[in-house]
Amino acid sequence: MPSPSPKPPISPAAGEFGARVRARREAMGLSQEALAHEGGFHWTFLGQVERGQRNLSLHNILKIAEALDVDPGELVTGLR
Amino acid sequence: MPSPSPKPPISPAAGEFGARVRARREAMGLSQEALAHEGGFHWTFLGQVERGQRNLSLHNILKIAEALDVDPGELVTGLR
Repeated sequence: MPSPSPKPPISPAAGEFGARVRARREAMGLSQEALAHEGGFHWTFLGQVERGQRNLSLHNILKIAEALDVDPGELVTGLR
Repeated sequence: MPSPSPKPPISPAAGEFGARVRARREAMGLSQEALAHEGGFHWTFLGQVERGQRNLSLHNILKIAEALDVDPGELVTGLR
């Protein structure tokens, strides 16, 4: 049975935010599980963020930025 | 009867975010009502954001940044 096609991002901004998180995570050589553990959130939440499925809160943006060791501004700059 | 003392921000980050929104709004010479109208949200929501009472979502961060004509990165850079 073919796997269901991935749901589209909830918005272009959420999609771009997630792509930035994934790119930075992969550049650090971390798995979703490792980054989720580092940030203190569940890996399924992180997977949803990376797929643009989450309109996440300010506090979660800051938690993810801290776990990725980037300034939170870098994750949202230019988004509309 | 003395007015109740203002509630503290829900977090240092929410407090700083709100202060940045207020500073930029005032620099533009806009009232809360005018900025709320510009951004398409209720002025009471904006007041809560400015007082650091909201852990607002990514989409609302972008809506506020757009109404303030600033890059959203400027509103969150350096927050922890």
